[in-house]
Amino acid sequence: TDEEKNLYEKIDFDMEEYCKDVRACKLLHDTKTLRDWVAVESDSSDALKRDELMRMMKITENKFNDMKGHTNLFDIGNQELPNGQIIPLPVVVTASFGNDSNKATVCIYGHVDVQPARMDDGWDTEPYNLTEINGNLYGRGASDNKAPVLAWIHAVEAYQALDMDLPVNVKFIIEGMEETGSNGLDELISKQKDDFFSDVDYIIISDCGWLSRKPALTYGTRGNCYFFAEVEGPKQDLHSGVYGGSVFEPMIDLIGLLDTLIDSNGHILIPGINEAVAELTEEERKRYEAIEFDVENFKNKIGTDGLMYDTKEEILSHRWRYPSLSIHGIEGAFSASGSKTVIPAKVTAKFSIRQVPDMDPPTVEKQVTTYLNDMFAKRKTPNKLKVTMIIGAKPWLADVSDPLYVAGRRAVQKVFGVEPDLIREGGTIPVARTFQDVTGKSIIMLPIGGFDDGLHSQNEKMSRYNYIEGTKLFAAYLHEVSQINKS
Amino acid sequence: TDEEKNLYEKIDFDMEEYCKDVRACKLLHDTKTLRDWVAVESDSSDALKRDELMRMMKITENKFNDMKGHTNLFDIGNQELPNGQIIPLPVVVTASFGNDSNKATVCIYGHVDVQPARMDDGWDTEPYNLTEINGNLYGRGASDNKAPVLAWIHAVEAYQALDMDLPVNVKFIIEGMEETGSNGLDELISKQKDDFFSDVDYIIISDCGWLSRKPALTYGTRGNCYFFAEVEGPKQDLHSGVYGGSVFEPMIDLIGLLDTLIDSNGHILIPGINEAVAELTEEERKRYEAIEFDVENFKNKIGTDGLMYDTKEEILSHRWRYPSLSIHGIEGAFSASGSKTVIPAKVTAKFSIRQVPDMDPPTVEKQVTTYLNDMFAKRKTPNKLKVTMIIGAKPWLADVSDPLYVAGRRAVQKVFGVEPDLIREGGTIPVARTFQDVTGKSIIMLPIGGFDDGLHSQNEKMSRYNYIEGTKLFAAYLHEVSQINKS
Ligand SMILES: [Zn+2]
Ligand SMILES: [Zn+2]
Ligand SMILES: [Zn+2]
Ligand SMILES: [Zn+2]
Repeated sequence: TDEEKNLYEKIDFDMEEYCKDVRACKLLHDTKTLRDWVAVESDSSDALKRDELMRMMKITENKFNDMKGHTNLFDIGNQELPNGQIIPLPVVVTASFGNDSNKATVCIYGHVDVQPARMDDGWDTEPYNLTEINGNLYGRGASDNKAPVLAWIHAVEAYQALDMDLPVNVKFIIEGMEETGSNGLDELISKQKDDFFSDVDYIIISDCGWLSRKPALTYGTRGNCYFFAEVEGPKQDLHSGVYGGSVFEPMIDLIGLLDTLIDSNGHILIPGINEAVAELTEEERKRYEAIEFDVENFKNKIGTDGLMYDTKEEILSHRWRYPSLSIHGIEGAFSASGSKTVIPAKVTAKFSIRQVPDMDPPTVEKQVTTYLNDMFAKRKTPNKLKVTMIIGAKPWLADVSDPLYVAGRRAVQKVFGVEPDLIREGGTIPVARTFQDVTGKSIIMLPIGGFDDGLHSQNEKMSRYNYIEGTKLFAAYLHEVSQINKS
Repeated sequence: TDEEKNLYEKIDFDMEEYCKDVRACKLLHDTKTLRDWVAVESDSSDALKRDELMRMMKITENKFNDMKGHTNLFDIGNQELPNGQIIPLPVVVTASFGNDSNKATVCIYGHVDVQPARMDDGWDTEPYNLTEINGNLYGRGASDNKAPVLAWIHAVEAYQALDMDLPVNVKFIIEGMEETGSNGLDELISKQKDDFFSDVDYIIISDCGWLSRKPALTYGTRGNCYFFAEVEGPKQDLHSGVYGGSVFEPMIDLIGLLDTLIDSNGHILIPGINEAVAELTEEERKRYEAIEFDVENFKNKIGTDGLMYDTKEEILSHRWRYPSLSIHGIEGAFSASGSKTVIPAKVTAKFSIRQVPDMDPPTVEKQVTTYLNDMFAKRKTPNKLKVTMIIGAKPWLADVSDPLYVAGRRAVQKVFGVEPDLIREGGTIPVARTFQDVTGKSIIMLPIGGFDDGLHSQNEKMSRYNYIEGTKLFAAYLHEVSQINKS
């Protein structure tokens, strides 16, 4: 229609004009809602914060209701903690805007839970008090994933504020357990395959970031297998003076065990892991060459003198298409400041292995468990080892020639005037793979986070620029998707 | 004198009679003061608890003043925390009872600071609320070292309550930094060599425990060199998905480094450490054979199926006269429950090596630092290693034929009717060595703690039996010391 054409022109070619509309402009530049959302300590990894997380889901639902969306809350059951305690999982919130069968339907996935954050982790500002400094909005969840979810919401609100019909039907599915493995979500998606997802044509995920100052489209993510390795010895902590030299110390056994996982060059020593990795094709190699990536900048950003690899291609491929193993920490040992002469009785290491095609989490679980048990047996210690895989998320890979990616390139061109980088994500968004496996629909990852947002770190932020231009990108993208199959 | 003889008889041969004196009996059976002392969270390792520790020193001084002792507070200066902050050290409290130049003078050393304790470390009762269950008094510091200090105080009070002269002059020196290395104490002892210590003939320390249900005299302790090994990499924590595979992870470097310290058989791998250990003499070997020690009981108490060694002699000698290395924990990594996909930017391992004759802490510091730097260099990582020895306490060894030990055997015989075990202590009481080096006086360790008191652990306790019989032992010991050189 002419009206749609009109809207398209507005969004497409004259964002400034579009912004002159007072209501839409105000909305685009407003960070109050983001501040309110960041203020909720919706840390899904901490059972003690579960009430806050529940409240966050309710706030999300209320927001959709205020926008006159058709909302639904899905109870996804309970969670059993390692200590046996049962606590409820946060509901999954869905919302629908429009159900015109002549339009395509997109489903936007996001999460409103966050990683843990405490001032004494080394934050410069209160992590749950959104603080703007030099154009950056600092706060836990600012980039991962509250601002992107709100940018999508604001994009829909902008259409509403301008009294323009949405070019596509828009659905949302927002969860609260992403940071700890999206418990219960896979099951819900499977159950809703022929219901909520029955009319969905495309799935959009914006839970990642650009690689540089240039916008990007993301076509793959690594999976993640997260392990607990618990070594249990004496029935209680012991004094290292009184008992040292007579007992097999669980901490020493655990250190020895962890040191068998990976060598100093980052080579994973567990048999079968490296063998499962898909070979690098010539086409893929070329794609890496085309990407804008400055190794020196990357080093400076990290603050290190040296990386595992020297070239852009090696560094990117080892972040995206090869597995990596990280040791996150040890629970049960002395971790405070100061000194304590304790022999900890039970210590649990936390480590994870990023998954890439063609690795398979159940196989990796078996490989890791068998290997660690073998290595532990060699130590001939009376202590007990228990290896548990608590997260087993598959990798995901899309076809970059899919129409969703063509639409993505067009939207980026129109809002930013540049060709996006085609990148992959080293992190894990397990739901991408689930959407692919269950719905069979095309999926795109359309990030708006900056390359230096510090996800999962101290001083996480989203720049005001990325937040606002990202909102515009999303508005434009909804239009571009409506043009698929129309040429 | 006849009066002294009379007292001697009372204490010596008829403790029941002695206890019939209402005042002394009440005093012996009173645990109120211990409850008050345990209620003070005088954790010297935690700078945030420094005010409580200061209050504990004041309470100690007040107690001595109430007993009409001549007290002194010694300011021992400040402490610099690892973060550069300067905080005051707790004063050292001294007290003197009697200064009759015809009597011998004993100096009793003790400490009123404690190890950290929190309910969620796994305590069954509130650690700072003394709780009696089945004859045991549970609480942090109950055995280490508040009850022994109070037992000495009550022994003096018992003489006072019975209106009997003390058989020897009694001095006390009580500090508040023992659990973190007795900062400032060595210097004070040196300064007071010709002043407070000028008339001291014998030094008594009761900061350890029996080996079995049988009373014991302790003639040696291990020293301790406590190390921080800090590996610093990226300028902030990183997301393991985004960065894993490209950066040298400090945690992986640290794990690799720690695994070079000791093998799975408890053999310390740092060159020079084992070579410095004094050879086991035949006389010493025989002393081990004579000791009452049940290996199965020891295993049950620890709750383990296997120990590093099989025989009584091997187990005891590896706890007492050989070095041991314990890894206490890692600061800066993820140590909470749950999962976090973080690459920690800076991690600091805490480990310590117990010292035995003829090891020398400055030499050990050099050996450990050199070795770890060499091992680290082999990893070829860009991360930075910093090794710091924060405690360097020497071992201590006494001559068991010294008159103080003869007096100890007599006192034990008289109160308990058995011959004490002659034992050593695997833990560190650094001040023993300082007293020896500075004053040149004879030193004895006269423990009253039970073998299963759980020092530095959850559920630390002192049994009511040990507390009361220990008080009697101390009263009797003061008399036995007065008999030295009188036969
Ligand atoms: Zn996320
Ligand atoms: Zn995340
Ligand atoms: Zn002590
Ligand atoms: Zn202690």
